[in-house]
Amino acid sequence: MSAPQIDAERFLGRLDAFARIGGTAKGGVNRQALSPQDREARRLLAELAAARGFEVRQDAIANLFVRRAGLDNSRPPLLIGSHLDSQLTGGRFDGALGMLAAFEVLEALEDAGVETPVPVEAVAWTNEEGSHYQPGCMGSMAFAGGAIPAQWASLRGHDGALFSEELQATLAALPEAAMRPLGFPVAGYIELHIEQGPSLEREGIPIGIVEGIQGTRWLEVAITGQAAHAGTTALAFRRDAMAAAARGLGRLYDAIMPNDERARFTVGRFSVEPGAVNAIPQKVSFTVDLRHPETAALDRFEAAIGDTLAKAAEEGGCACQIRRIFDMPPAVFSAPLLERLREAAVETGLAWKPMLSGAFHDALFLARVAPAAMIFVPCRDGLSHNEAEYVEPEHSVAGARLLLASTLAALPG
Amino acid sequence: MSAPQIDAERFLGRLDAFARIGGTAKGGVNRQALSPQDREARRLLAELAAARGFEVRQDAIANLFVRRAGLDNSRPPLLIGSHLDSQLTGGRFDGALGMLAAFEVLEALEDAGVETPVPVEAVAWTNEEGSHYQPGCMGSMAFAGGAIPAQWASLRGHDGALFSEELQATLAALPEAAMRPLGFPVAGYIELHIEQGPSLEREGIPIGIVEGIQGTRWLEVAITGQAAHAGTTALAFRRDAMAAAARGLGRLYDAIMPNDERARFTVGRFSVEPGAVNAIPQKVSFTVDLRHPETAALDRFEAAIGDTLAKAAEEGGCACQIRRIFDMPPAVFSAPLLERLREAAVETGLAWKPMLSGAFHDALFLARVAPAAMIFVPCRDGLSHNEAEYVEPEHSVAGARLLLASTLAALPG
Repeated sequence: MSAPQIDAERFLGRLDAFARIGGTAKGGVNRQALSPQDREARRLLAELAAARGFEVRQDAIANLFVRRAGLDNSRPPLLIGSHLDSQLTGGRFDGALGMLAAFEVLEALEDAGVETPVPVEAVAWTNEEGSHYQPGCMGSMAFAGGAIPAQWASLRGHDGALFSEELQATLAALPEAAMRPLGFPVAGYIELHIEQGPSLEREGIPIGIVEGIQGTRWLEVAITGQAAHAGTTALAFRRDAMAAAARGLGRLYDAIMPNDERARFTVGRFSVEPGAVNAIPQKVSFTVDLRHPETAALDRFEAAIGDTLAKAAEEGGCACQIRRIFDMPPAVFSAPLLERLREAAVETGLAWKPMLSGAFHDALFLARVAPAAMIFVPCRDGLSHNEAEYVEPEHSVAGARLLLASTLAALPG
Repeated sequence: MSAPQIDAERFLGRLDAFARIGGTAKGGVNRQALSPQDREARRLLAELAAARGFEVRQDAIANLFVRRAGLDNSRPPLLIGSHLDSQLTGGRFDGALGMLAAFEVLEALEDAGVETPVPVEAVAWTNEEGSHYQPGCMGSMAFAGGAIPAQWASLRGHDGALFSEELQATLAALPEAAMRPLGFPVAGYIELHIEQGPSLEREGIPIGIVEGIQGTRWLEVAITGQAAHAGTTALAFRRDAMAAAARGLGRLYDAIMPNDERARFTVGRFSVEPGAVNAIPQKVSFTVDLRHPETAALDRFEAAIGDTLAKAAEEGGCACQIRRIFDMPPAVFSAPLLERLREAAVETGLAWKPMLSGAFHDALFLARVAPAAMIFVPCRDGLSHNEAEYVEPEHSVAGARLLLASTLAALPG
């Protein structure tokens, strides 16, 4: 047995091979969860696993596990992985980088003949993106919860596809994968992912050790006034929902992020009724995506959003209703596991910095049932969820090297 | 011959009868231009005309004329009227009030045996609303221009109907109406209409004498930034098109109408791309409806809109593009004709005030080819383009009385 090594050429070749599955003309990937492209990627992964003698298993939500046996296969495995599904016009690294690095770690262990005390499994979680069926992180969420929520049975994708049917078809497409229960015991979980933000690149640091994930709240806001003729209605008689929204949002853009650099405030959807050029809007509806690493700050900003929008609405003769449609508390990753990752980073000689994730990841859900942590590598211009997403080969390889060292460091005795 | 009188019962009964054509469950009207309902209304009008011995004529754009002969039928007629088409969920008075009042004027003249020096014609202009086919005011626009613009031939309605086919079918449905040229000489045009705003009702005045129509400009604005992940992208790296738009619009809502009570500033359409809860908007597109009675003020405000939005965009790392998609200059109605209307108002003993119209009307186009003026009556809560649109019977009758008196006052010698 020699020290296991990442085979950079093999690993980068795998990234290219998977990028061709669902590859788009602009160099991105459209490989939506449970789609034919997703099944093709699962098929390729299963064939690569079989070629190395690794067992393939799946659970009821089609999380796919490639298992390299350990010395005691009755003990909980150490999981490493990410996801293979993509956004509709996604990039080739979001998910695939971490998943293929995990598979490369298994191969590196196999090449070197390393015997691990417990099995190490590379896992591809189902539907992390939520771009085909909502919500995202379905696979890791169901795994952490130990069951598939009943309401998912009737879900349909944006294309009308029935979730439950596509799930069964995806499972059936890999008949050689033995079924296993949802939510079996796990020794730990480590996920490599691209940062999806610009901070590592701007600071010239190749590795982020991710200590937690920001909490996220999604709000749905409706401001209601009265429709009236744009030409005939003087200011005193207007109850313009658009004007109230613009004023309220202007104040919030000035108040939230400029005063707290860890806060994130985004209005991503916005619609107007009746939506005619010459009609004063009767109703505007919009979403707020609010993130912060501290629950207390989320509470404080959510209250400020409610107060500010209610006041702007009232000033404009309108009413404001806010509904919280999503609430994911901040996650703090496992302190002992993070210490193993830091040791591994020192050992590999890679520069790193501690950071928080602004995006959700499957690790958020795994952290509920096992020690979990994440590794980030830079992506160009911080761009993700975009066909132009790009990671320097040296950063992909550095991430895989640290994932290998972290896996070895995190193995139980 | 006695002094002609409006027959209130007959007139109000006609309003009810026409409101049933395309009548909606909520008491409104859906009688879109050139639709089967529009044809049914035209049919009823033609039958009512025939019963009184009035001749019916139509032109190539299906403007429908009910002609009461005068002493010299070779001279240009005096036109009175409005339109019979409605919004999709429109009210029963918008257009129909003025059209049926004009017909009532013809009947009152006939009842009293009044001989007029020139013919008086009640006209229903085609597609004033623009709710079925765009643009609105097609009938009066083509009449004033003397031709149907070539590009209208290929127009389709929101329901896919081909404008040219529906126009031919509408003309064919009234074979007894003799065809006449578009844009024949006219002695003058008087239009009674509901105010579609709240000012008369609030001031308790039954009559507005409309001295002109505000100018209108429509702008299409695009603010472009960069899409990025809502959770991972810190403020310094954001180019948030939604934030720039909200800030810019907030400033414009504060700057324009509060400082000029004759200005109207409305953002009626607004859309966001990519439109995901967790994506920073890359692009927002919205419309501006800007109105003012003075061209110089329109110029000034349009420049201010451009400057303010460009500045807000630049501050947010975004770009701003503005395109003017519609420009209707302010119209000033005929001073001598307005003087006749004021005299008629004094004669009828109705309280009135001078006012401007914030909405377009067919009179805007007639004013280009003949002395034109308008009379407004109050509508409840200023509500129009709404099934709840309502006019007090006494106000409908007052409007018809003034239209009759004005017609007599405006007849050439």
